[in-house]
Order: sequence, then structure tokens, then C-alpha cells
Amino acid sequence: MIQEPLNAMRHLNLTLSTLFLIFIPSLLFGQIITWKEIHPGVWKGTAGKPDAYDLLKAAETSASPALAKLSKQEFPLDKSAIVFQVNNGKSYLRLPLQRNEQLYGFGLNFQTIHQRGRIMQLHADHYGKSDNGRTHAPVPFYVSSLGYGVFVNSAKYIDVYAGSGVRKDSKNPPKVMDRNTDKNWEAHPYSDAVEMLIPAEGIEIYVFAGPKPVNAIERFNLLSGGGSLPPRWGLGFTQRVHRLYTADQVKQEAKAFQEKGYPLDFIGLEPGWQTKSYPCTFEWDRSRFPDPAGFVKDMDQMGVKINLWTNPYVSPDASIYKAIAPYTGSHTVWNGIVPDLSMPQARKILFDQFEKEHVKIGVSGYKIDEVDGFDSYLWPDVATFPSGRSSEQIRQTYGLLVQKHSFEMFRRNNMRTYGLVRASNAGGASFPYVIYNDNYSHEDFITALINSGYAGVLWTPEVRASKTAEEWLRRFQTVCFSPMAMINAWSSSMQPWTFPEVAPQIKALAELRMRMMPYWYSEFAKYHYNGTPPFRGMNLEEGFGINMKKEKTPTNLEENPYEEAVTREVKDQYMAGEYLLVAPLFTGQTSRKVILPKGKWYDFYTGKLAGDGEVITITPGMDQIPVFVKDGGIIPMMPALLHAPRSGAKTDIEIRHYGEKNASYNLYDDDGETFAYEKGVFSWRTIKVERQGGQLKGSISAAENGKPNTIGNVTWRFMTE
Amino acid sequence: MIQEPLNAMRHLNLTLSTLFLIFIPSLLFGQIITWKEIHPGVWKGTAGKPDAYDLLKAAETSASPALAKLSKQEFPLDKSAIVFQVNNGKSYLRLPLQRNEQLYGFGLNFQTIHQRGRIMQLHADHYGKSDNGRTHAPVPFYVSSLGYGVFVNSAKYIDVYAGSGVRKDSKNPPKVMDRNTDKNWEAHPYSDAVEMLIPAEGIEIYVFAGPKPVNAIERFNLLSGGGSLPPRWGLGFTQRVHRLYTADQVKQEAKAFQEKGYPLDFIGLEPGWQTKSYPCTFEWDRSRFPDPAGFVKDMDQMGVKINLWTNPYVSPDASIYKAIAPYTGSHTVWNGIVPDLSMPQARKILFDQFEKEHVKIGVSGYKIDEVDGFDSYLWPDVATFPSGRSSEQIRQTYGLLVQKHSFEMFRRNNMRTYGLVRASNAGGASFPYVIYNDNYSHEDFITALINSGYAGVLWTPEVRASKTAEEWLRRFQTVCFSPMAMINAWSSSMQPWTFPEVAPQIKALAELRMRMMPYWYSEFAKYHYNGTPPFRGMNLEEGFGINMKKEKTPTNLEENPYEEAVTREVKDQYMAGEYLLVAPLFTGQTSRKVILPKGKWYDFYTGKLAGDGEVITITPGMDQIPVFVKDGGIIPMMPALLHAPRSGAKTDIEIRHYGEKNASYNLYDDDGETFAYEKGVFSWRTIKVERQGGQLKGSISAAENGKPNTIGNVTWRFMTE
Repeated sequence: MIQEPLNAMRHLNLTLSTLFLIFIPSLLFGQIITWKEIHPGVWKGTAGKPDAYDLLKAAETSASPALAKLSKQEFPLDKSAIVFQVNNGKSYLRLPLQRNEQLYGFGLNFQTIHQRGRIMQLHADHYGKSDNGRTHAPVPFYVSSLGYGVFVNSAKYIDVYAGSGVRKDSKNPPKVMDRNTDKNWEAHPYSDAVEMLIPAEGIEIYVFAGPKPVNAIERFNLLSGGGSLPPRWGLGFTQRVHRLYTADQVKQEAKAFQEKGYPLDFIGLEPGWQTKSYPCTFEWDRSRFPDPAGFVKDMDQMGVKINLWTNPYVSPDASIYKAIAPYTGSHTVWNGIVPDLSMPQARKILFDQFEKEHVKIGVSGYKIDEVDGFDSYLWPDVATFPSGRSSEQIRQTYGLLVQKHSFEMFRRNNMRTYGLVRASNAGGASFPYVIYNDNYSHEDFITALINSGYAGVLWTPEVRASKTAEEWLRRFQTVCFSPMAMINAWSSSMQPWTFPEVAPQIKALAELRMRMMPYWYSEFAKYHYNGTPPFRGMNLEEGFGINMKKEKTPTNLEENPYEEAVTREVKDQYMAGEYLLVAPLFTGQTSRKVILPKGKWYDFYTGKLAGDGEVITITPGMDQIPVFVKDGGIIPMMPALLHAPRSGAKTDIEIRHYGEKNASYNLYDDDGETFAYEKGVFSWRTIKVERQGGQLKGSISAAENGKPNTIGNVTWRFMTE
Repeated sequence: MIQEPLNAMRHLNLTLSTLFLIFIPSLLFGQIITWKEIHPGVWKGTAGKPDAYDLLKAAETSASPALAKLSKQEFPLDKSAIVFQVNNGKSYLRLPLQRNEQLYGFGLNFQTIHQRGRIMQLHADHYGKSDNGRTHAPVPFYVSSLGYGVFVNSAKYIDVYAGSGVRKDSKNPPKVMDRNTDKNWEAHPYSDAVEMLIPAEGIEIYVFAGPKPVNAIERFNLLSGGGSLPPRWGLGFTQRVHRLYTADQVKQEAKAFQEKGYPLDFIGLEPGWQTKSYPCTFEWDRSRFPDPAGFVKDMDQMGVKINLWTNPYVSPDASIYKAIAPYTGSHTVWNGIVPDLSMPQARKILFDQFEKEHVKIGVSGYKIDEVDGFDSYLWPDVATFPSGRSSEQIRQTYGLLVQKHSFEMFRRNNMRTYGLVRASNAGGASFPYVIYNDNYSHEDFITALINSGYAGVLWTPEVRASKTAEEWLRRFQTVCFSPMAMINAWSSSMQPWTFPEVAPQIKALAELRMRMMPYWYSEFAKYHYNGTPPFRGMNLEEGFGINMKKEKTPTNLEENPYEEAVTREVKDQYMAGEYLLVAPLFTGQTSRKVILPKGKWYDFYTGKLAGDGEVITITPGMDQIPVFVKDGGIIPMMPALLHAPRSGAKTDIEIRHYGEKNASYNLYDDDGETFAYEKGVFSWRTIKVERQGGQLKGSISAAENGKPNTIGNVTWRFMTE
């Protein structure tokens, strides 16, 4: 009977020494992390035996030279409080937290911005309506409100306890309370650490100094080469057309834009351009596109580039099928074989085909679909890959791999690209891809836009089908203040003018997007050269603070058994570049509150003072998306062209200044289309506004000799005076 | 530059032999599973190096002697199609699926019954509104509609692909289709296997023969000792009272039940009986309960037993704190230390305290809360435990451990117990605990009741606060046809008569529950001795079939991008014991459809024919829960007592027969309170109904000499004739 050994144990008269013997195998001796400062303010720590394959190895990017020029900083944490142990074959990592510290990041979250207290398993996947770590970009990077960042370079599913676990031996333990009688009892006692479990026998970790939180993010982005620099046309407007459109129908669509005077820089073709899809052949369907090269050329002459949808799962009918088959995983996706893109052989076959079939005839980019997950569609985690890398590792890096190697293909052809992808990860900041998904909550889309800035990725709150003109307009407003101004309503074939009652407003917004191109382009250049995210959360703005309120909920214990307070976050306003605060409205809203950080803020449209470090309530009407400009803000603008200026074309600019302060702005310039900037062919011009004799005066530095200069006439507009 | 190695690889002129060399490390040679028939129709397979600690080791149960008497069966699967491999340190397991096979089980799911095609990670946790494997009982057992069962005995988080993955080398591959043009294209191509990933370097697996699906479940349950046998009083009615009630208030509550004539067998005390809770002391609060022993005795004399809420997390103010501290994990739960209950030392200290403080004064059982998860409350997976077992293993087995060792404590005292627990797992079928949770969807509760029968656990669709009399009544109706008839509205202090407009109906239902006690008790005895789940899904009923419809949805691709068909399952009717089909109504419903399996079915209340293998629509009114009886159904009933009969008390029975068929029924009897039945002190009496000369006649066998006989007068009621 089972009673026997049990009783035997019970009667053991345990002495301290036998206890010690029993515990030896389970005692955890902390292991040492070896730290090295690899750039000013960037430390790399290694401990144990990290996996041979990781996120940075998949991304194969080099650190930006800008890192070397950054200021020296102290290591921002107490090193002795960073604990590493290997336990049951997994790495345990602990980092300290201060009492009034908030955390941001941990990937592209859709519902939450403040991550302290949250628990997640970072896992490449389609966002499934809860921020549990499963997302399109499960980036193992976080930034603290105290001005430092931490990145764990692992391509595994990492369990994160972002200040939720409480250790018995904590030196800052929470107060023990009695729930029977103590009204201050808390469901979530105070936790003094971020803890992670990494399923590997060692770790590689990076710590980034600030001093400000945004500086830590910049260092993180620069570590993988800085942010991406899109071509100018990438920042124009893009429309995606029905999956079964023919070449002629696509031309008609472009012509309609032209005739109606709506800007359009590139059109995306959905699966029907391929002979077969799901799984894919990557080959043009000649019944719909009899002359692909001629078609792409004709479109280009209309000023419209072509972007191609695909996923990477290879149809048995693809001409590369046999060649690539040995380099594919054990499982199929929609009956397509799955290239092991961590192997050079697989990517050579795949991207040589892309190059020959698409890029060489002028295709400008891709929408690379379904590399994120949706467990029920993707390969299962039991799959094996010929590289020997685990399914988990391939899953975590697949988005990086498709971006990296398609980007390299474009680089070989000296054509910049700007496309869409459904998965990314740490290391991918420099790849010119914007993440999108199949979810369609406008609110979640804005939260994701905010979080993209904490994760080193780009995100578009794309416009898809809308039920009402109001929804169409509200969604369109935010997409014009995002990394990619896109209508992706191919299934319903909606067009900007589909709702006639708001067609003029839509056109005005698209024109505004075009007029702001010098600003957008410069802000992206700062992303590339300095690592500063072009779209980012308010919490990175000085004078905003953490701004999260815990509210005790009055509900009964049957509905709220642990008496959890509800957390209200500010996630409906964000910064677009250096100077703009965007406060979108969602369908059904007619007014909203806006939190203006400390300092004076001005209305973008009128230049009037809107407030100074206060909460204002606005009722902006349907036509405008509320935008506010920081005191001293400079916004360079250009005419509302239908297409982005091509390489070398001169464009007049209007320089707007807001508020009272003297100000300066770095305006970026290059050819906008090629990789010449990587060889130094670019220029920064300094715009200055200074008060001289009571009046504001503007000046702009000349372009250096031999450097690009696409600026024509300059006009000045002092919006506030 | 990173280009170098890449290009070098590209130029490799790969021959087949170099390919082979490259692939060797990743080639997966199937490893052998060693099979052994350990009982008739039960095979144990082992492969690789399974973990030392697993579910059955945690449960420490012995197989039921009934297994040895079962009929011999063929191994129900093609052994060569069961594949095992160790890959990247994890075990891969594959089991074949036939085309028209459906799967049930994989733990206590709340929304789905049919599991084929589903993906989950089995993980002890609070149910979080999606069936992703995180549940109170993540049992790694499934049963096939073809009549066999499979159980993977692992205390790890198992990834399950229940017929979703498609292998490149499948011998039954799905048809490749072109989504551009083929209307039959499917988002989920046909998959021919169940695949699992077990994070261990070996597995222990059990295969159970049928021939019917229910027989495979019976074998699974018998493997861990058969189902639990509650005391008779456990099947009566139970009420839970406000957490801060004093001994006098509890007595008042019991008195109110008595005076108003509502049955009551046990009362549950919530946290306030302890001096401190969250974390817990396990000690009586003398201000509210000045004389615990006297209180429990007084209550017992009123016919009402006492059940105590607790969780196992030890307060610094508990007298056992110091003694148990060395045997607790690294992390706390609500500031309580966490006993490593896989260690005999820890459980001896904890349960000795329970025994001394509660059981010895007559406490009848526990509600053991918060052993399931809710990640944000429980210990994190980074926690370590002094046994050296991983946090994951402790998490998966904690529910088993608290059940096992509290059960053993009651067994030592020769008192049967029947309590509540919030987590269980495979191996726990014989522990007399019913699972409950904080979710409160009536519909989900019924789905869970159905799934409990596939998982070797019990579940109660408890009644908590209700907004309307209708809801109160509808919920009460189902709870009376479940393993535990409980009102758990302690927070709102609702009582059965809280809604006066339905108080008489509530009383009638509670009385019906009591009258049916001989049936319930015999059905539980069959759970214990034969392994047959007392509450179970329709799919186990012959003549019901699989009954799941896929409906193509007409929505557009922007709302349903993969054109997924919606699956409609029948999850609103279930079997209660051998003969009863229960078809509850939910709030707002006035009529519903009921699928009657093949054969004749009769109305439980009137005995009238309701239908024969057909779908009927019923409009039963508010007062009744629709129940149907299979042709030849025998339901033994007793008078509507206020308390279950105590040991040895004689009770009259009324034996009901439904329909036209000759029939027989095994009626179980024992003392209902002690473990004497384990020493053979029980009896089965055979009830027979046969048609003699055109008329139905009933007979009941005599009790064996010296065996229990609690049956007084027998009356017969032929409901249909």
C-alpha cells in the first residue's frame, strides 16, 4: 500500500544536517553574469551557455555607427541585484524594480501600455484579443520610466513576470495583511523584481542606459542598425485592390485616383496575381497579368509602384518546389512546404525567385502575410526543420528572416523598399516593414501604434471596410498620422471616395499626409540615424508622467472575487515625431479629453494656444483629427502632390513654426529611392527660428556641396503670431 | 560584413552526400515505444527517459481491482502509426486519426466538446474564457469516438495538436487547392494525427481499449482507483455562508433551513472562520467561533455537517509557519508561503494541523481554493521548490496533492469526505472533490459538466448570486442534476428562498434532489466500482452520434479572413447517470430543442413518451427542468428528507420504471459515512422489472447476509403504464 513509504518519511527525525543533504540538489547557487560595455551606455551580459541561435543572429544586422558617438553613462542598475540561475534546464533571470517605476514594452501589445505587474509568454502569434505575450512582435525588450532598457536576446518563448512574483527572501517584501478584516488587503502584493524564465541553459542580455527612457530605446534600436528609412514614396498613400483584379483593373484603379485627384504612391496586389495561392507559386498569373513587366512599367509611369502580397508557403505547383523541398520543415502550411529560412540554401532559392520574377521588373515591395502564427494555420511546434533549429526558434524569428532577406534582395538591386509584414522581433528595427493584422479594433490599433515605439517596430492602423462614413473618416484620420497611410479594403473594394459625404474630407486628409512628407521623412531619418521612434507613447514625453490610475471597483465579490482595482491607462493619444501630439477620436465620440504635458501646446491647424500642462476637453467636429504642436515646434511641409517627389526632383517647402520659443529643426534630404545614403549621400539642413527685435525670423542652412538638395523655394509661416 | 558567410553558403555546390551530412544532426529517427498490457485492455507504453515525477506518482493511487475482471481487447490502434521522437530535448508523440473520428477530453473544457482540430497547451490554471488548455483540470487524456482512449502521464505543460498539423510526409495528405479560384479551399486542411510535444526526454503513455468510448473512460478512471464515492450526505444540499458569519449566525442559517423545510446536509464556512486569511492560519477565530468543537457538534446534531474554506498558503501568523517554512517554495502567494506538497515533510505538517484543528472535532470536508492558478495570483513559473521539482510540475499536480493528502487524512479517521477543489488532474478520479471556479456562465458550466465526464473529474455548476428569480431558478435546476447541489452565494448571502416568487419551486427541486438520492448514490457507486462517469456527454450515449455541424459563414473576408466555417456543437444536454437525459434551459429561454438518441425516451415527470430518436421542441415552463428517461429506465427514489439518511438508518424507497422494456438496475448500499466499503462492507441489490402476462412486475433481490441493508419498504411505480 502507498501508506508505507509515506509513513516511513513521516517518522524520519530530520536533523538540520540531513535536511541540508536533502536540499543540496535543489539549492540554487546564483551564477555569474559577465558584463561588457560594447558601446557607450550599452552593456552585454552573458551567463551560462546561451543558445547558438538567437534574435540578433537571425536578424544579422550590425550596430549603427551612431552608437559609438553617444555619451558615456553609468550602468543604470544595481548589478548585484541582477540574478541568473539555471534551474531544471531553464535560465532564471531577475532584475530589480524600484517602488515608483513603470515598465513599457515587451513587444507589440494591443490593449495595455503599462506593463508592470503583467505576466506573459512572449510568443510570435496573431494577436488574440488579450495581451498575454502572443503578438506579432513578441520583442523581449522593456524600458523603464527610470530611464534604462533591458533586452534578452533569445529566440525562445520567454515567460515574463514583470513585477508580479513575490519572493520569500525579498528584501522589500510587501506587508502581510489579513483579508478577513483589513480593508487595504491587495490581490496583488508589491513585487520588487522582473523575473523571466528562458528555456535555455544560458542567456545573452543587453542593458541600455538613458538618461531618459527614450534614450534607452534609441540605443536598443541603434544596436540593430537604427530604425528603417523608407523611400519617400513609402510615406505617401497606398491602396490595396481586390485579389482577383486584372492588370487592366489595377490600371483603372490608379487612373481613378488620378482623375479624382487623390494621392497614390503604391498599389498592393492581393493573392490573385499569383497562378495559385495558399499555397503560393510566387509566379504571375498570365491570364490576369499577361505582361507583368509591361504592367509594372506602365504603373510606374503613372507614378504608382506595385506591392505584392504573398506568404512564404510553397505550392507543389511552384517552379521552385523541388529545389527548395530539401530545405523545408516537416509540416506544411495550407499544403505549402515551409522554407527553413534560417538556412542560406532555402532563402537563396526563394529570394532568387522573387528577384527574378518581381524585383527585376520593378516591383517595389511585399506584403508578407501569415508569418506570425495563428496556431491553427501555422506549422505546429512539433515540427522539425532541416537546420536542426527548433520549431519555436523558427517561429520566433520567421518574421525577421523574411524581412532581412527580402530587404537584402532589394539592397542588391539598389532599390529601397517599404512593405508590410505580419511578424517581427528584436533586431528588426532597420527592416523597412510595417506590421499589420486581421484584428480590426480602432482603439487597439492606436494602442499598438503607441507600443510599436517601445518595441523597435512599425505598425499601421490600416483602414479596412467601415460600416459608416464616420468610421471611415475616423479611421482614415489616424492612418494619415501613422507609418503607413493605407486603405486595405481589397475584399470589399472600398475606395477613398466610397462614402461621398466624406470624400472631400478624406481627400483633404490624404493631401495633408502628402504635405507633411518633409516632416515624416525627417522623422524617419531620425529613427534611422538616431534610433528615435517616429511614433511613440506619451510616457516618453517629458512632463507627461506615468498617468495610470488604479480605481477601486465597487462590484461584489461574486463578480470580482479578488477585489481587483481597475487600471485606467491613457492610450488614446500619442506623439507623431518630435513635435506633434495626436489625439484621435473613435466612432461615436464627439468630444474627448486630451492630456497636454507640461509646457505650452498649440493647435496644429490654427496655431492657437491650446493649453499648458493641463487636461483639456475638445469637440473638434468630424473633419479634423486633433493634433497639437509643442511650443517651438517646426513642421516642414510641401505642396499636396499626388505622388512623392522622385529622386532629384526639387520641391518647394513651407516651414511652419508654432508658439513663442526659439527653435531649430534638422531637415533630412537624400535621393529618397536608393541606398546611396548608406554611402554618405545625404544631407541634414538646420532650420532655425529666432526672435529678432520682437519678431520671429527663420533661416535654413545651405546644403553641403555635392550633397543632395531637393528643396526649392522656402516660405515661412509663423502659425501662432 | 554579414554578406560573406551568406554568399559562401550560396555558392556551395551541394551534392546529395553533403546534404546528408548536413542533415544528420536534425534527422529524426523514430524511437521505440515499449508496450506492456498491464490490465485487460490497458496498455502502458514507455519510451526514452520519462520524468521521475508524473501525474500518477503525485496522485499515488492504485488501480482498481475491477480492471482485472474486464474483458480482453485488441490493442485499438495501429502501433506502427504511433511515433515517438526526442527532438531538441522534448518528446514528440504522434497518434493516428481516422477520417470520421471525433475526439473528446483533454481536460475540463468550458466551451467546446469536440476536440478534433483544436490546439492547446495543457496547463493548470483558472479557466480564462477560452479553451486553450488552461483549465482547472488540464487532464492529458482523450477518448475517441472509435472507442479507445489515450493518456500521457506527464506533469508538464503538454502542447497538443489534436488533428491540426499536416505533415509533408503524411500518407493521407489533404488535397492541395488554389484559394484564388477553388471554392472548396479550406482554412484547415485535413490532418491525420494527434501530435503532442512533451517537455521531457521520454514519455509514459497509456492506451485504453473500449469497445465503446465509455469503456475506455471507465478503464482510465479505474486505473487510478475508480471514481470517488461520496458519503450519502455529500449528495444532499449544501449552502455556503458569509465569510464573517459567527457560530451563532451559522446556526441561525441552519435553523432557517429547518424551519422553512428546505433540505440541508452541509454548510460551508468561508475565510472568516480562520484567525487570518490570504494568507491563512488554518486556526479557528475564537471571536467568531469561541468553541469550535461544540459548534461542529451542535451543527451535527441539527443534521448539518461543516465544510471549511481554505487555501494552502501559510500565514506568518500560523502556528505551523516556522515548522513548514523549510519545505516551501521560493515565492509566496498573497504573502503566504507555499508548501511543497510533493514532500512528505510539508504535507505531514500541514495536514496534521488540519487533522488536529478540524477533522478531529468533526469537520466533514474542505473547499480548497486557489490551487489552480490565475497566473497573477499564484507562484510564478520561475519559482523553485525544495523537492527540486519544477514549478511547472508542482503547478500541474498541486490540485492532486491537496486532494490526495486531505483524503488520506479523512481515511485515517474513517470519515468519508466530500469537498470542493479548484484544480485536479489525471489520477485524481478517486478523490472525493468537486471542481468549481469563479467564472459564472451558466452555459459554460453545463459544457464543463459534460466535459468532466471525459476527464475523470467532477464539476458543479454552482448557483451564485442571480439577478432575477428566473436565473436563480434555472441555475438551481441544473445544480440539482449535478455532482454537488450547492448554493455558493456567500458574498451576497442569498438563500434558497431569497426570491419569494420561486421559493416553492426551489424547495420542490431541492426535495427532488433528496428523493433521487438512491439513484445518485448508486450512480456514484458505479463511478467508483466501474469507472462510469455519473455525469457525461451525449456522445457517449449509443444512438446519439457525433452531432457537430460545420456551417459555412457568409461574412466577408475582412471579418473572416480565412473563411472559417463555424462549428455548432450540441452542448446543452447531458446524461445524468445510466438513464436520465437532462436538457436544461438558460435564462431567457422559454423553449428549446432536445436531441433524443435512438430508442424511446419518456418524460421523467409524467412517464409519457417524449420521442424516439428524434429532435423534439419543448416548452416546459419555468418550474421544471426537462429530464427524459431511456426506455427501461429504473429510478430508485426515497422520501424528501431534510438530511441524507445517516449510517444504518432504514429508508423506504419508491422504484420508478419508465417505458415498455424489461429492465434491471443495480442498487448500491453501504453505511454511507465510513470507509467500511473498502473492506467489502457494501451490497449491490438487483432490481428487476419484467413483463408478466402483459403487465410489468418489479422485484428486488435481498441484501446478502451481513451486508448493509438500509432499505425499508419498497413501492413500485410504473410511470408509463
